[in-house]
Amino acid sequence: MRPSGRTADQLRDVKITRNYTKHAEGSVLVEFGDTKVICTASVERGVPRFLKGTGQGWITAEYGMLPRSTTERMGREASRGKQGGRTLEIQRLIGRALRAAVDMKKLGENTINIDCDVIQADGGTRTASITGACVALVDALRYMQEKKMVKTDPFLHMIAAISVGIYKGSPVLDLDYPEDSSAETDMNVVMTDAGGFIEVQGTAEAAPFSQNEMLAMMALARSGIEEIIELQKKALAE
Amino acid sequence: MRPSGRTADQLRDVKITRNYTKHAEGSVLVEFGDTKVICTASVERGVPRFLKGTGQGWITAEYGMLPRSTTERMGREASRGKQGGRTLEIQRLIGRALRAAVDMKKLGENTINIDCDVIQADGGTRTASITGACVALVDALRYMQEKKMVKTDPFLHMIAAISVGIYKGSPVLDLDYPEDSSAETDMNVVMTDAGGFIEVQGTAEAAPFSQNEMLAMMALARSGIEEIIELQKKALAE
Amino acid sequence: MRPSGRTADQLRDVKITRNYTKHAEGSVLVEFGDTKVICTASVERGVPRFLKGTGQGWITAEYGMLPRSTTERMGREASRGKQGGRTLEIQRLIGRALRAAVDMKKLGENTINIDCDVIQADGGTRTASITGACVALVDALRYMQEKKMVKTDPFLHMIAAISVGIYKGSPVLDLDYPEDSSAETDMNVVMTDAGGFIEVQGTAEAAPFSQNEMLAMMALARSGIEEIIELQKKALAE
Amino acid sequence: MRPSGRTADQLRDVKITRNYTKHAEGSVLVEFGDTKVICTASVERGVPRFLKGTGQGWITAEYGMLPRSTTERMGREASRGKQGGRTLEIQRLIGRALRAAVDMKKLGENTINIDCDVIQADGGTRTASITGACVALVDALRYMQEKKMVKTDPFLHMIAAISVGIYKGSPVLDLDYPEDSSAETDMNVVMTDAGGFIEVQGTAEAAPFSQNEMLAMMALARSGIEEIIELQKKALAE
Amino acid sequence: MRPSGRTADQLRDVKITRNYTKHAEGSVLVEFGDTKVICTASVERGVPRFLKGTGQGWITAEYGMLPRSTTERMGREASRGKQGGRTLEIQRLIGRALRAAVDMKKLGENTINIDCDVIQADGGTRTASITGACVALVDALRYMQEKKMVKTDPFLHMIAAISVGIYKGSPVLDLDYPEDSSAETDMNVVMTDAGGFIEVQGTAEAAPFSQNEMLAMMALARSGIEEIIELQKKALAE
Amino acid sequence: MRPSGRTADQLRDVKITRNYTKHAEGSVLVEFGDTKVICTASVERGVPRFLKGTGQGWITAEYGMLPRSTTERMGREASRGKQGGRTLEIQRLIGRALRAAVDMKKLGENTINIDCDVIQADGGTRTASITGACVALVDALRYMQEKKMVKTDPFLHMIAAISVGIYKGSPVLDLDYPEDSSAETDMNVVMTDAGGFIEVQGTAEAAPFSQNEMLAMMALARSGIEEIIELQKKALAE
Repeated sequence: MRPSGRTADQLRDVKITRNYTKHAEGSVLVEFGDTKVICTASVERGVPRFLKGTGQGWITAEYGMLPRSTTERMGREASRGKQGGRTLEIQRLIGRALRAAVDMKKLGENTINIDCDVIQADGGTRTASITGACVALVDALRYMQEKKMVKTDPFLHMIAAISVGIYKGSPVLDLDYPEDSSAETDMNVVMTDAGGFIEVQGTAEAAPFSQNEMLAMMALARSGIEEIIELQKKALAE
Repeated sequence: MRPSGRTADQLRDVKITRNYTKHAEGSVLVEFGDTKVICTASVERGVPRFLKGTGQGWITAEYGMLPRSTTERMGREASRGKQGGRTLEIQRLIGRALRAAVDMKKLGENTINIDCDVIQADGGTRTASITGACVALVDALRYMQEKKMVKTDPFLHMIAAISVGIYKGSPVLDLDYPEDSSAETDMNVVMTDAGGFIEVQGTAEAAPFSQNEMLAMMALARSGIEEIIELQKKALAE
Repeated sequence: MRPSGRTADQLRDVKITRNYTKHAEGSVLVEFGDTKVICTASVERGVPRFLKGTGQGWITAEYGMLPRSTTERMGREASRGKQGGRTLEIQRLIGRALRAAVDMKKLGENTINIDCDVIQADGGTRTASITGACVALVDALRYMQEKKMVKTDPFLHMIAAISVGIYKGSPVLDLDYPEDSSAETDMNVVMTDAGGFIEVQGTAEAAPFSQNEMLAMMALARSGIEEIIELQKKALAE
Repeated sequence: MRPSGRTADQLRDVKITRNYTKHAEGSVLVEFGDTKVICTASVERGVPRFLKGTGQGWITAEYGMLPRSTTERMGREASRGKQGGRTLEIQRLIGRALRAAVDMKKLGENTINIDCDVIQADGGTRTASITGACVALVDALRYMQEKKMVKTDPFLHMIAAISVGIYKGSPVLDLDYPEDSSAETDMNVVMTDAGGFIEVQGTAEAAPFSQNEMLAMMALARSGIEEIIELQKKALAE
Repeated sequence: MRPSGRTADQLRDVKITRNYTKHAEGSVLVEFGDTKVICTASVERGVPRFLKGTGQGWITAEYGMLPRSTTERMGREASRGKQGGRTLEIQRLIGRALRAAVDMKKLGENTINIDCDVIQADGGTRTASITGACVALVDALRYMQEKKMVKTDPFLHMIAAISVGIYKGSPVLDLDYPEDSSAETDMNVVMTDAGGFIEVQGTAEAAPFSQNEMLAMMALARSGIEEIIELQKKALAE
Repeated sequence: MRPSGRTADQLRDVKITRNYTKHAEGSVLVEFGDTKVICTASVERGVPRFLKGTGQGWITAEYGMLPRSTTERMGREASRGKQGGRTLEIQRLIGRALRAAVDMKKLGENTINIDCDVIQADGGTRTASITGACVALVDALRYMQEKKMVKTDPFLHMIAAISVGIYKGSPVLDLDYPEDSSAETDMNVVMTDAGGFIEVQGTAEAAPFSQNEMLAMMALARSGIEEIIELQKKALAE
């Protein structure tokens, strides 16, 4: 039995609110149950130095948590003077995942800055961030097309992410915080709408996991991501 | 004529939403028109070193802006590795203002950490922060009374804040961003519900201001703050 | 009775020594009683990036205290690796105040760097800094005229600053450290020689203050600043 | 055909030299072809604050590259004043992997600091680091047993790691730099000597990967890790 | 011929002003010609962690330059967020030199913090700092004896320092900035009043130097330091 | 008697291994007994800003120690976020010494970055670094001549360094850690193959030293450096 009473393959309520704030070219509030993340996509002309003159664009991501998005207040990274290792690891993952969704040549020498800021955390903030950010990214690309900043749509495919894990010996989908903090294995999966894998990160937290457990988790992830991509597309159709 | 069409003494729509996020002892979303700030008050046992053994409590504040809360994306302070001067100045102001609302002896050796995070900016973020944080503070103090962390209510008086200014030669209340960015004078005022001043910070942006202009701005501030304190009290009564 | 025996409207001895050090274009030692600050104005061709090509100049300020300028030794900010919030707040105030004294268009694309370094502190270091720096600024502008770096004098008006406060219930002028550390209200005022206000920053330290108290403090400030501006002009005439 | 002429399932020459430097309790030079990493395990009494009084130990890891371990010289992280995201991500991975090899309760309130410093890089530095560090860790645990710092051997199982990938459409084992820099997919796998997975991190670099590709990579990893673990055990038997 | 017209073995005017600022236990303005440094010695109970419980004291030093103490304005180290290598090198030298002047056991578990802040630079700031700081140190030790913080005088011997060099082929004493910036060799010497060497640091700036040149420079340094120690003792006798 | 049983004028075994790592233009492992340092010289087109357009080149050096190169593990500077004063002092010394070996005009607008990384420390790491780095530098200059990056050989003369000291009252050559940590005086000497001095840094650790002691140490240094330069030249001839 899961603490939330969900079945093993049941997602939390997933909500995607577009245009959540008014300044960004793409701005989404994504909610996976009590996990809430503001994802913005900001369009900027020009690219980092290592890409200048190549004709290619760039997508980069930053991630943060409000100090009291968590059960206990965390120190503010801006005030401590550096981002922690977990933050850097997550924002590198978000950036890699979203770059896989876009044709950098078609993007031209433009940069899209993704910001994912967790306002309430209850497990799965990195996968929620990728899921919400991909919707914000589509809005930003639409903006660029309207403004004639790109000639053709640089979007390759929708991307979504979910966490799966082994909890009390059984594979489960979309772990919330009570599950996440005591799972034996934790795995984050990023996939495309065509079913290809972009990223698979499985970690044994309490005991090594087997190939069979891994396959069971991947199957759960695949079905969960299919559901989420439907929700992304529905939100974008509104 | 003000860009928003408001009269000189008219506030923007002010909304105060309590329990906006679930983890903090006090959590408020405060909105002044399009300016939106999440204010949380986090209770922590113990005090900073300089107060240990004094029997007195402490209130401290931190302030941040989401990178795309503004028209142009700002660099993330956590990633640049330091908080800017403006941020530090604002969070020092918020901390001072809220300390003036509480009897530190009655608070006992406990600390309340105030976090004000701007998710959308349209002028007046520091005064909105103080206004929202004071409501979150009251909720945190109620929590402490329920948990018997304090013997008697340490709250002294409600505090609210507003900006006033000289815009195109006339005193106006509650400047939004278009006004703020071209005002001749900008003044932030913090007052108690008894009409006492906690902080007055007036700055000539384009031209020196006169004592009469200052008095006119203070009168506007006083009436605006009275209105806001009504809204705070109404929110707290729900 | 004030600890120093001064009357409520009496300044400490104010001394302004020009050409205090030999390298800077403007270099002043300013003393308000035992408070001693070295203020230099350094002329530099060029402006920060945000002003390039606008034809306008810039004035910026930095503030520091020698570690043992205070009763207890303070940690050296250079060694701690960052400037504290108080330092940043003060240097932002000094910069704003001095920019109000100069016509940036007439300054052309040149920068004046103000440095205010407290060698001995006894209250009122920020207002002494503004007062001394304005004299150093005039010397730097004279240097620029001699060197034909500007066509016409960019100076608009003399600026001076003073602190006032409510000490033991009474408004007093020019607080020294014993008064400052126990005042109920502390207010810093920056004015022009024409009597216009550049900055008014009043803070309730122990109790809210009333509008009447504010007016009384402002009247003291006005008369004190008039006296100080006389001394600045006398120093500049030598 | 692989650039090195190796078959798809062929490791580079792997060498493990124990007691490489003289001060550390465990000190190993590990070589995977031209990739060379010095791995030390340093024993320290006491644990970080969050474990004090729990009776449990801790293992933590740091990773670095000499500036000219790479084709182009990289800036020195100590001189830039911070470790990059890649470094933090890798050292978090190394620490997690090695903690999975040890029973923290049996370790008692002691800390083992793992340092992995790359002196020459040619692909696969993070997996070489884990492989070498596990040998250094065993030496450090032997030291602790000799010194009676632990009552029973805290070692759970040998851990080794290898990278696999899809290179020009085919799964290959142990990518060197020329392969790594143009692989379609890159996957790092950490396993125990009992064949359990500790960590699986697969990343699509150029195109999404399929489940079949993933399974093929995992099979390669399994056989490679078996070979490596033989080498670790042989080195430890000398 | 030296730019200043001095003979090869002639010091600049050296002035030592005690009690230059009022808060420090020892406070000296030291002048070597146009080089002016404020040196303070601050007494503090307790010692750094590595000395706790040893019964020994500690002396440490920090060095800084006001941004416009130099011909061109230098960036403020506090604002850049770190002390440069030159600063650290100098303050390590000052600390070592002054520790050689005091019996750490007799000092007991107390710390003396030396601060040397250059307000005007014209060559030789590090040697002027050591010379002035030693006088401030004596005043601080006298304070400690008066306050019964030490039982017997911990002072071992007077220390002074001077720079010498090879300028246009000839050995000269006490280089000013015009000499220092074009000398072939630069040497800083710290000696005791008994003629023992504490530190000798010779650096070839333009060409290697010979042993004979070194001996000539050392002879100049010896006679210069004798003169300076007379001035220190005279200042302390006043 | 020296702890190692060496005579007063006896070097430790000195080994110089060229081409120690494969990427750098010059790469040397230098060993003085148990002290082992990897020295690389990296060639880079272009110069720092202050030399642009002058036609001159630059040589700069960085120094680091692996955390467990020492008896007790030291904190990693990259992780603490800054290089310590000792590190900066040493790398400044290495840079100065090597710049003295090269004609900067003949080097043209190219930079050579020297990296000295201590993998095992047993006293004398800074002098071993200079000695090894000079050999790596020669290899880098040969590379530049082959690649036609310079027209004529910019090398001026071989440079080597050694530490000498007063240990238990007697002058000794090439102190190892047991000697270094209890010597009365410690002196580092850098010389050219023509017998000129580049740097002499003598420090009284426990007692002032006399001119005679200094001369005795210098004589030891001279003979030791002659021996070392033979070894450098032999290594370069292979």
